[in-house]
Amino acid sequence: MAKNTLGPDKILQLGFAFWGAKTLLSAVELGLFTYLAAGPKDLKTISKKFDLHSRSNADFVDALVALGMLKKTAGKYANSPESDLFLDKKKPTYVGGILEMANQRLYPFWGTLTEALHTGKPQNEAKTGGDFFGAIYADPKILKLFLKSMTGLSMGAAVAIAQKFPWKDYKTFIDIGTAQGGLPVQVALANKHLTGGGYDLPVVAPVFNDYVKSFKLQNRLKFYPGSFLTDPLPTADVLVMGHILHDWNMAEKEMLIAKAYDALPKGGALVVFEAIIDDARSQNAFGLLMSLNMLIETPGGFDYTGADCQKWMKAAGFKKTRVEHLIGPDSMVIGIK
Amino acid sequence: MAKNTLGPDKILQLGFAFWGAKTLLSAVELGLFTYLAAGPKDLKTISKKFDLHSRSNADFVDALVALGMLKKTAGKYANSPESDLFLDKKKPTYVGGILEMANQRLYPFWGTLTEALHTGKPQNEAKTGGDFFGAIYADPKILKLFLKSMTGLSMGAAVAIAQKFPWKDYKTFIDIGTAQGGLPVQVALANKHLTGGGYDLPVVAPVFNDYVKSFKLQNRLKFYPGSFLTDPLPTADVLVMGHILHDWNMAEKEMLIAKAYDALPKGGALVVFEAIIDDARSQNAFGLLMSLNMLIETPGGFDYTGADCQKWMKAAGFKKTRVEHLIGPDSMVIGIK
Repeated sequence: MAKNTLGPDKILQLGFAFWGAKTLLSAVELGLFTYLAAGPKDLKTISKKFDLHSRSNADFVDALVALGMLKKTAGKYANSPESDLFLDKKKPTYVGGILEMANQRLYPFWGTLTEALHTGKPQNEAKTGGDFFGAIYADPKILKLFLKSMTGLSMGAAVAIAQKFPWKDYKTFIDIGTAQGGLPVQVALANKHLTGGGYDLPVVAPVFNDYVKSFKLQNRLKFYPGSFLTDPLPTADVLVMGHILHDWNMAEKEMLIAKAYDALPKGGALVVFEAIIDDARSQNAFGLLMSLNMLIETPGGFDYTGADCQKWMKAAGFKKTRVEHLIGPDSMVIGIK
Repeated sequence: MAKNTLGPDKILQLGFAFWGAKTLLSAVELGLFTYLAAGPKDLKTISKKFDLHSRSNADFVDALVALGMLKKTAGKYANSPESDLFLDKKKPTYVGGILEMANQRLYPFWGTLTEALHTGKPQNEAKTGGDFFGAIYADPKILKLFLKSMTGLSMGAAVAIAQKFPWKDYKTFIDIGTAQGGLPVQVALANKHLTGGGYDLPVVAPVFNDYVKSFKLQNRLKFYPGSFLTDPLPTADVLVMGHILHDWNMAEKEMLIAKAYDALPKGGALVVFEAIIDDARSQNAFGLLMSLNMLIETPGGFDYTGADCQKWMKAAGFKKTRVEHLIGPDSMVIGIK
């Protein structure tokens, strides 16, 4: 051992990574970044505002500095450029909803991952009799948190799709399972010639309309109510499904792709995006962990590779398919009818 | 937003870092790396051995590949060089004890970090009436897990100290709060002229003696029983304290440093090591998070900077002090009497 150059450092960093995660999640829960968006504050002011104990306050904010989420200058703490843009609740670019959900729900649910590995069963509200989407859609407060959280999860990819997809070749688009409308807003902002909107359960309408209105896009983006499990999909030149397919089992995935095919005109495109796993299933850790998150959260959902999705699209009748990387762990799979 | 080059990716990776951590912790809990140390196995064999559900098995092991903990070749899964050396329970280099403890105890306890930030109170067994060390030392099974886990936490630093400290200038050393004896073993292996041992509560003796014997070092390393809270410390040319000072409050820290000063001969050295925080408290995230872990685990413990520790040593009478980086987040602070 003493002569060996291998060290346990990488293993320990990974095994204790929940410390840094939970520290960020608690900061989001408290609203620290929203508060600091107004300007830098010293430790005393922050501690008073959030009722932080003198034993923990300095370690907490200094850890956030070391994790790159805050900056410390002359004794005052300020948001980093990223945390200011993405973790200030007052900005439309807020992605903290998904972290609020991770803090309240996913962190404790993942505590019983080992049980899920043995049983193949969800570890969330379903464990005590509910079902995931049922539990979420039944409570307006949880629903709003969930819908906002989806915007956070999709923000980076939505911006990339708005830029990378050849939108100039199309006139209309509808985002299937749109939640708050994060994707349509980014696409519409970057492509002024497009009209379209978002499709989701009727209960989602007010949350979508509020969000779209906050960008003054209500004249170009409409809400399309419906259930993709029981209804046909609405028609547009381009249909988008982001973080939708991974929620469902194989038969449901095939059904959703078939419905998209039916709804598209000839030459229309289906754009599927999420943390698409690399074909060798050995590189995209976030995509593989997201699939384990589907184990924790759903009865049959799973994430998949680009090759998987292209195969399903071809089986549904799509003529051409391709995979294109977006940002970080996210890619899009495009099928042309 | 669409024109901005800032992305939320780094924030989301940090906020969801508990997924990767918990996946590794579950693999350690199952004993996957110990099993694979015997040779590569395919998915079916692994799934049967550990009763992994068909829904979760591939995502689980492929995520471990993507996280760098396993390698996949021709459909078979094998340990990475690091996981083989440090996560195989049958090897004396096993560091998984600390991860077993993190999985069983720390992961759920950190779930109420926000409460700890407000109250300054521990979130562990102490919350239901016990005290941390009391709870651990009262149960032989938990004690052994804890003592082994300390070896894991100290392994990298112990190897670095064995090489970097000028041991040739000294003949004897005792590790204060030695637990299983991880530090003395590494120091003795790399420095054949040294004799000494480890000091800890009497109940620790059999665990220490077993571990030392497994390296055939029982002729050079002895167990010194005692309590550093109530007894004077034993005498040696060098006294070492690794992951000890951070467990205690300011008055207790000063008392321990004073006892070390009293026990050392003139010219003797006190070597303090752990995840020493950088003086600006803005770089060593692991050290700052470890200090929050002391909040979760102890009534008054906290981590500290090299400047803090040198100041305390000088106040206790030490003539010369210096800080030297060891490995990863760990440094040592040396005081010469």
